[in-house]
Amino acid sequence: MHSGQHEFDRQTAVTPSGAGRYAAELAPGWHVGGGINGGYLLAVIGQAVRAELPSKPDPLAVSAYYLSASTAGPAEVVVDVRRDGGSIATVAADLRQGDQSRITALATYGDLSALPDDVRTTAEEPHLPPVEECVPSSMAPEEVRAVAPLMERFDMRFHPDHVGWAVGEPGRTGVISAWFRFADGREPDPIALLLAVDALPPVTFDLGMPGWAPTLELSAHVRAVPAPGWLKVRHATRNMAGGMFEEDCEVWDSAGRLVAQSRQLARQPR
Amino acid sequence: MHSGQHEFDRQTAVTPSGAGRYAAELAPGWHVGGGINGGYLLAVIGQAVRAELPSKPDPLAVSAYYLSASTAGPAEVVVDVRRDGGSIATVAADLRQGDQSRITALATYGDLSALPDDVRTTAEEPHLPPVEECVPSSMAPEEVRAVAPLMERFDMRFHPDHVGWAVGEPGRTGVISAWFRFADGREPDPIALLLAVDALPPVTFDLGMPGWAPTLELSAHVRAVPAPGWLKVRHATRNMAGGMFEEDCEVWDSAGRLVAQSRQLARQPR
Repeated sequence: MHSGQHEFDRQTAVTPSGAGRYAAELAPGWHVGGGINGGYLLAVIGQAVRAELPSKPDPLAVSAYYLSASTAGPAEVVVDVRRDGGSIATVAADLRQGDQSRITALATYGDLSALPDDVRTTAEEPHLPPVEECVPSSMAPEEVRAVAPLMERFDMRFHPDHVGWAVGEPGRTGVISAWFRFADGREPDPIALLLAVDALPPVTFDLGMPGWAPTLELSAHVRAVPAPGWLKVRHATRNMAGGMFEEDCEVWDSAGRLVAQSRQLARQPR
Repeated sequence: MHSGQHEFDRQTAVTPSGAGRYAAELAPGWHVGGGINGGYLLAVIGQAVRAELPSKPDPLAVSAYYLSASTAGPAEVVVDVRRDGGSIATVAADLRQGDQSRITALATYGDLSALPDDVRTTAEEPHLPPVEECVPSSMAPEEVRAVAPLMERFDMRFHPDHVGWAVGEPGRTGVISAWFRFADGREPDPIALLLAVDALPPVTFDLGMPGWAPTLELSAHVRAVPAPGWLKVRHATRNMAGGMFEEDCEVWDSAGRLVAQSRQLARQPR
């Protein structure tokens, strides 16, 4: 499907080594702060599961539990098919480096293009000002970009109301939203949506808590194949308790459809 | 913690048989339609994980993938500890009957009573009329109760605006909310919240789609130990696509705290 000219495809590619095992090479460009971006890792797992299930190419639901921080370099994804029948299949998948398990996941895959296209959405599409009136991620200070090479992978244009944290004036609404696309023009697809749900800065930035917010668990549902063009991504949190917060994410495509939903449970930055 | 006099505790009890294996007996009283209620099964898994992790008694996050329909009778839960360090542990758990896997799950457990009690919620507590002005589940027609013995386990009082489906006039808002407690007076705890997030009728009833809505995936976050008394449970769906819908659930305790959040992906009733 992809020509392989795009960075995301090259750097999430997996090589089968038999019996459900896939070799991957985690690329350093997806670092953010002390670790590798969780959405990128989810996409690497997503590619291995896709390779294991040729007739069911699309993630419908993926739940990932983050066990330890990944580092750039070789990794292995082990896919164990737990059920494969009818139009969907469910697998367990583990991302490992050396003898360390990084992420353990469950996933149900199917073929989104074969599903009925009856869509009824009562959710409201997030309002974003036009792209040219939003704040590009390229305006981030040099020192931020130095610790977050991840940002160079994307073209993100933030809602002006949701970037106060970048200048020490967080909006304190618990919401961050932005236009989102790959910097090199790669169009979105279901695997890329696994990345998109965890690509923005943690929503805690908007609550005046800068710093790393490690994900404990993230579940994503991919609801439709996204149309080409800009995505709208909206993160929100409503409940902080026990030193943890939930982060809900919605991804809308250029056709105005809610194409992915996710929720993660993360630790509050210290 | 529990005296064992309550039905829920007796019927979710597990007996260790070594090496992470736990025997359970699925009770027929939790049937609804053609299968056993998914929330009850989640609670059975939850008890086995709790037994395996004595110092981390509470589910923080649980993700369950439903593979086949369970039946009343013997079952086994196999718990595999994937990481146990610091204040949390992550496990994989499988519920099996004979050689069939019914549910495969991942879970992170901890000790909710040991966590900081700083709570900041911007979510709004759902409005429900007083208990005595809501519609008791005991008013359901005889033929409904005959196929849903599950209902006898609970005392549910539905928001009058959300029961039109019971008389052929669905509200078509995609919301069902109710007061919820156990019929025998057992007080809620974190394991019972795993049941509560999947105990109400499917929210599709309110959209004029009666019938079984099989869960593909359900992820629940337990955010705090619930206070004794009535729970408020609210289910909502906003996006139907590809023959599937998401069902978001919130559970609020009698102290007005958002104590559990869940989302499931389910198939639309045919």
